[in-house]
Amino acid sequence: MEEKMGWWNTEIIGVKPNKIMIRGYQVQDLMGRVSYGEMLYLMIMGRLPPESAGKLIEAVLVAACDQGVVSPAITATRMAATCGVTFNCAIATGMNMLGKIHGGPIEEAMEIFYEIVDRAEKEGKPIKEIAHEICTKYKEQKKFIPGYGHPVHKEDPRTTRLWAMAEKAKEKGEISGKYVETADSVYQCMKEITGRHLTINIDASAAAILCELGIPPETGPGFICLSRGLGLTAHAYEELQSGKRMKASMPSDLLSEHMTYSGPSERELPPERKDLP
Amino acid sequence: MEEKMGWWNTEIIGVKPNKIMIRGYQVQDLMGRVSYGEMLYLMIMGRLPPESAGKLIEAVLVAACDQGVVSPAITATRMAATCGVTFNCAIATGMNMLGKIHGGPIEEAMEIFYEIVDRAEKEGKPIKEIAHEICTKYKEQKKFIPGYGHPVHKEDPRTTRLWAMAEKAKEKGEISGKYVETADSVYQCMKEITGRHLTINIDASAAAILCELGIPPETGPGFICLSRGLGLTAHAYEELQSGKRMKASMPSDLLSEHMTYSGPSERELPPERKDLP
Amino acid sequence: MEEKMGWWNTEIIGVKPNKIMIRGYQVQDLMGRVSYGEMLYLMIMGRLPPESAGKLIEAVLVAACDQGVVSPAITATRMAATCGVTFNCAIATGMNMLGKIHGGPIEEAMEIFYEIVDRAEKEGKPIKEIAHEICTKYKEQKKFIPGYGHPVHKEDPRTTRLWAMAEKAKEKGEISGKYVETADSVYQCMKEITGRHLTINIDASAAAILCELGIPPETGPGFICLSRGLGLTAHAYEELQSGKRMKASMPSDLLSEHMTYSGPSERELPPERKDLP
Amino acid sequence: MEEKMGWWNTEIIGVKPNKIMIRGYQVQDLMGRVSYGEMLYLMIMGRLPPESAGKLIEAVLVAACDQGVVSPAITATRMAATCGVTFNCAIATGMNMLGKIHGGPIEEAMEIFYEIVDRAEKEGKPIKEIAHEICTKYKEQKKFIPGYGHPVHKEDPRTTRLWAMAEKAKEKGEISGKYVETADSVYQCMKEITGRHLTINIDASAAAILCELGIPPETGPGFICLSRGLGLTAHAYEELQSGKRMKASMPSDLLSEHMTYSGPSERELPPERKDLP
Repeated sequence: MEEKMGWWNTEIIGVKPNKIMIRGYQVQDLMGRVSYGEMLYLMIMGRLPPESAGKLIEAVLVAACDQGVVSPAITATRMAATCGVTFNCAIATGMNMLGKIHGGPIEEAMEIFYEIVDRAEKEGKPIKEIAHEICTKYKEQKKFIPGYGHPVHKEDPRTTRLWAMAEKAKEKGEISGKYVETADSVYQCMKEITGRHLTINIDASAAAILCELGIPPETGPGFICLSRGLGLTAHAYEELQSGKRMKASMPSDLLSEHMTYSGPSERELPPERKDLP
Repeated sequence: MEEKMGWWNTEIIGVKPNKIMIRGYQVQDLMGRVSYGEMLYLMIMGRLPPESAGKLIEAVLVAACDQGVVSPAITATRMAATCGVTFNCAIATGMNMLGKIHGGPIEEAMEIFYEIVDRAEKEGKPIKEIAHEICTKYKEQKKFIPGYGHPVHKEDPRTTRLWAMAEKAKEKGEISGKYVETADSVYQCMKEITGRHLTINIDASAAAILCELGIPPETGPGFICLSRGLGLTAHAYEELQSGKRMKASMPSDLLSEHMTYSGPSERELPPERKDLP
Repeated sequence: MEEKMGWWNTEIIGVKPNKIMIRGYQVQDLMGRVSYGEMLYLMIMGRLPPESAGKLIEAVLVAACDQGVVSPAITATRMAATCGVTFNCAIATGMNMLGKIHGGPIEEAMEIFYEIVDRAEKEGKPIKEIAHEICTKYKEQKKFIPGYGHPVHKEDPRTTRLWAMAEKAKEKGEISGKYVETADSVYQCMKEITGRHLTINIDASAAAILCELGIPPETGPGFICLSRGLGLTAHAYEELQSGKRMKASMPSDLLSEHMTYSGPSERELPPERKDLP
Repeated sequence: MEEKMGWWNTEIIGVKPNKIMIRGYQVQDLMGRVSYGEMLYLMIMGRLPPESAGKLIEAVLVAACDQGVVSPAITATRMAATCGVTFNCAIATGMNMLGKIHGGPIEEAMEIFYEIVDRAEKEGKPIKEIAHEICTKYKEQKKFIPGYGHPVHKEDPRTTRLWAMAEKAKEKGEISGKYVETADSVYQCMKEITGRHLTINIDASAAAILCELGIPPETGPGFICLSRGLGLTAHAYEELQSGKRMKASMPSDLLSEHMTYSGPSERELPPERKDLP
């Protein structure tokens, strides 16, 4: 590229009068011809996705769209919708919570899966062997492997469905299947090491699918934001219709019971302050 | 419904062990079978969309995904990505800016279009007549009709494409076409009243398409958030790769020039304060 | 000012090597010599505050710093602190909720009080008369006067204290006392009109004090943000120490009970979709 | 404490009808009798601050209140103020950017200073010796010591003033002075190791002062948020008065020049997509 690069130079979008080019394509050519999931791939990766990638991405986006009010992000957005902010702010409030622990684990899971396959290939070892090594290290450091275990689901129906879709894509030669294998290996290794069944939850299965497509781990949380954004939008609207004002986290009787105070007993300011006018 | 409604009661999602139901459908049934755009419709409206609605919605979501760095939201997200926050927070920072003026005009445009068609039907008058009345009122009050006019595009290629897609959907009887007609009427009326060509921009054309599908105006900004979320994700990632730290709004030489100061000249505190230790 | 104004021109701050000037004062001269409350006045108003203004402002900032977990902002920040975001993001999440209904009513209250005093002076009528007119209008339109009524406090101890401090400042001639009189008049008028005791809550009393100091209404919510920021900081830290991860709005047993579902019963996709691979 | 602890149990605040207790003190007793800085100490630490702590804290809060538009947070808030969001959201938008790199370095600086003094005491070695060890380690790992170096200020006037205030507090026996000594030692060591003068900037000097007062490092970014919140409030208001709509990061002529595009040249969709209706 010969053109001088400006401060806001980008490889994503070029805008001229009557022309909006995204990754080289005119936006009107893309409309109606690439799906939302394909557009996400195009914008991040700079090229149109291979066959079936769009469908897998949209399956991931549909999968993680909502988990109900066990999600702090969903409840925060619903509460925000009753506080007199604009609709986008209510959505952004919940999205701002999807950090390293809530939504963000996908990034670390992707990094682990990429590392395992990468090392397996470089060291010429089976995936299972490297997975075992990594799991042992996590266990020793008393760290969780992100994406494993679930407080409610013994088997996560979203993982089951993603695995089935991945199987078909693998049969057609559209993905390698190595990352799904890796995610399964990690499950097996954790079971062998801890003796416990740790559900492969949506964070891990979504991570494996995105790895199959070569998506960079840093953007994993972006997929979660856009996925959960579906839920945040619907919940913000539903709550808005309730007409409530400043909705609290619990109904007032329960709240009274749960806003206990364990600080110091009532006390007076020291005399030199108390006598200030 | 006989069940007692809880504080966080919702019509959107029900979660049980190993089962996640959204609007009555099990999430794994939806994955791979409804697109992102259809899912958005389902979550907001409570039912699967009619034929072609999903495609129109995804066209809208693709259309408004990015406008480059003329968008304060895009630049804010890019700057946030260099400030040491988690990826989701960088996205939420930009999304938080898509308020009544930047992204939000779609809501008011939808309200106007719904009002025009509603009145035309109730009063048995042509759409054009009501549109003229509304435009005259806005003109008199020196208010802008949201969605009309563009600083760069004489003709917005996104509107042209949406109109073509809408035409096909109308031919197939999937939409009525009344709201596209309304958006065009408003353009004509504004031209007659002001003598100026005011480009039907993406805010107005997206608004018309969502009205064709019966989407509530309050959720319009949600569509913009999820659409622009594509751009925010891609831009956050691109900026992250630059390795910049605390990226400013301009390169430092320009910034020095533009951070002029027009406040009071240098001055000293009054003596009684200046002598404080 | 002769200097050309740049894009980011400001009357607030000028920065040169080794010199930071705020409203004309060097920052190191201000440090230790103006209080936080006085600094807030200086930055917004462009001049040092009159005697006692700093103390009144800090009293307002201390007054509204926390209301416990009845505040959606406080609970959202506490939940965010358990979600793996940076500390500032946890604070910003709660602050983002202090909108027109939660924290923001101070702005409308200030506008009403300024309008009443302004009209009383222009029309040469007593404050009480104009107040009665305004209250009647609100009552007729079935709107709330912001700042009146409280779900818990019959008498708001913060108002009582602010009134006492204002009384002393008035005696010394530092404030006029007209806005406190106005706030009281509105209370009286509402009582006469509705027959109900509507506690003068902190939104109204803080608004009256800020009006006494000539603060612009638009910035009222900024005072609330900086005040509540004290609580958000302390609560984010306390929750962070709990070590909880993804803290929900209720303990899990209660949550299960309260996340009821009132949407459609379980249903299957229509056959043409269900059979998609 | 015998009382059963609820889900939202806190040691910070207890609310009863007509009574708001913060850390055991009734809020109306605190109003007008503790400053904003003292209140921040009380809320975080659970006790009233020792003599002079409030003044030192307010000096820190005044010091870091603004750095003009070199701060991405300040420009983001100013842009947000022109996008049609509520005032609090404009402030929260900028605050959301004060992450690990922009505002957040204070936390890591506090951790380093606490570690140095702690080890010096435990190992019975001089502060300088431990500081040298730490600086060498950072140098070897090619990491920056947070709080040292400044693009504009050779000497940071805010540090000079904080050091002078700390000196007085030390003379009066109100602080130990060990953390100021540590911050100075780190400066000396970095100079010896790198041969470069690295300005002790406000992040490091504010960190040292907060360490002198025993403030937990995790809350350091909270002090920066509340400090910069002064600037965000003033800048949001100033920009709001400009009447601008969707203010961009640069004036339009410069923006056109700087929004260069370095992505792929204009291209067409592959035929199988291009022919989609």
